[in-house]
Amino acid sequence: IDESGDLEESRDFDAETQKALEEIDGCQNEIDALNEKASEEILKVEQKYNKLRKPFFEKRNEIIKKIPNFWVTAFANHPQVSALLDEEEEECLHYMTQLEVEEFEDIKSGYRIKFHFSKNPYFSNDVLTKEFHLGTSDPKSESTKISWSADMNLVKSARSRQEKMKQGRKRGLDVKSFFLWFEDHEDPSQDDIAEVIKDDMWPNPLQYFLVPDIEVENGVEEEEE
Amino acid sequence: IDESGDLEESRDFDAETQKALEEIDGCQNEIDALNEKASEEILKVEQKYNKLRKPFFEKRNEIIKKIPNFWVTAFANHPQVSALLDEEEEECLHYMTQLEVEEFEDIKSGYRIKFHFSKNPYFSNDVLTKEFHLGTSDPKSESTKISWSADMNLVKSARSRQEKMKQGRKRGLDVKSFFLWFEDHEDPSQDDIAEVIKDDMWPNPLQYFLVPDIEVENGVEEEEE
Ligand SMILES: [Ca+2]
Ligand SMILES: [Ca+2]
Ligand SMILES: [Mg+2]
Ligand SMILES: [Mg+2]
Repeated sequence: IDESGDLEESRDFDAETQKALEEIDGCQNEIDALNEKASEEILKVEQKYNKLRKPFFEKRNEIIKKIPNFWVTAFANHPQVSALLDEEEEECLHYMTQLEVEEFEDIKSGYRIKFHFSKNPYFSNDVLTKEFHLGTSDPKSESTKISWSADMNLVKSARSRQEKMKQGRKRGLDVKSFFLWFEDHEDPSQDDIAEVIKDDMWPNPLQYFLVPDIEVENGVEEEEE
Repeated sequence: IDESGDLEESRDFDAETQKALEEIDGCQNEIDALNEKASEEILKVEQKYNKLRKPFFEKRNEIIKKIPNFWVTAFANHPQVSALLDEEEEECLHYMTQLEVEEFEDIKSGYRIKFHFSKNPYFSNDVLTKEFHLGTSDPKSESTKISWSADMNLVKSARSRQEKMKQGRKRGLDVKSFFLWFEDHEDPSQDDIAEVIKDDMWPNPLQYFLVPDIEVENGVEEEEE
């Protein structure tokens, strides 16, 4: 009777009950339509505020460029992100000048994270982007192909650390690697690190830059958990 | 410097960096203010649609009253709710005529679930209400004191089933009981059954009433998981 077909199965009801069920189904259709309209309005509010917030994020990014090692410090102080940073990778992230997180216009369908770098000995790319397409039943992520300089390939280093760990039978222990994460596309709808960068780091990085009692510059670190 | 006090800790920065940090903090304050305004607007949209949906829920409740055993059938067909129903309790729920779920006006602070009953041999209450106050750091729930008829107290029955289970060392197995759930206030912010009733049963009970291939009336049940 309705498009969902549910009521067509109910052949055993008496006429009065059948009529009542159809009326309930009619109510459900009205409620569903209102739910749909509510979602659309909420999306519009979110889009409006994304636009209003954007100039402040841009201004913030310009100011952050003036502070040496802002992002590597914030990353190294962040409980989840720091757990990903191998020592050499942390060196490499000293060349990171800017982070950008952009939600796609319709928000639900995905987002991208852009890591901007100054000229550095590791790779020739100016921007490394990891992008998430989540709008379909088959979520996908993709990331910039990194043009590593000779003998500076940190993905290769991470893979050989991984191999050594397997041989040492330290299974269960994952290798720390920012760049393995960057190139990992196994479960794009559950990329915890990407979500932490989008929902925790990007909204307020200052709190991680400023974490007291953690010294990044001289390599002495006191983790507070 | 700002109310959060974060920047007061940063005494070691040079003047230029300190100035940049204060500017970043200024941007954060603007972003925070916009986040707050966004939340308020979204709340208003949700409140508006709660009001618009309300007459359809009320109309639906009136129609449902015409269908004998609508709610007990929907409950008994629902995967999580049915797991709670002891046989005698299911008998009792045949007297349930109406379900109501009301979110508090500001939505985030809580909700109540009202179970309406016709005259029945179990208790004298017309309505049993379980109510959740979640707006504070100390969430609480409360429920109607049930006036059980002599020898019909289903909470007592459930407690004695519980005792027997403990003696039989079947620990880990929880006793099935709708009424123990109704009177349970241990973790109001994580009441899975209440949430399933609010977010799954209430939005569309017809789908559970109509689940095919499950016979409730004659006691033969084929569960489909
Ligand atoms: Ca650290
Ligand atoms: Ca059943
Ligand atoms: Mg440094
Ligand atoms: Mg019945």
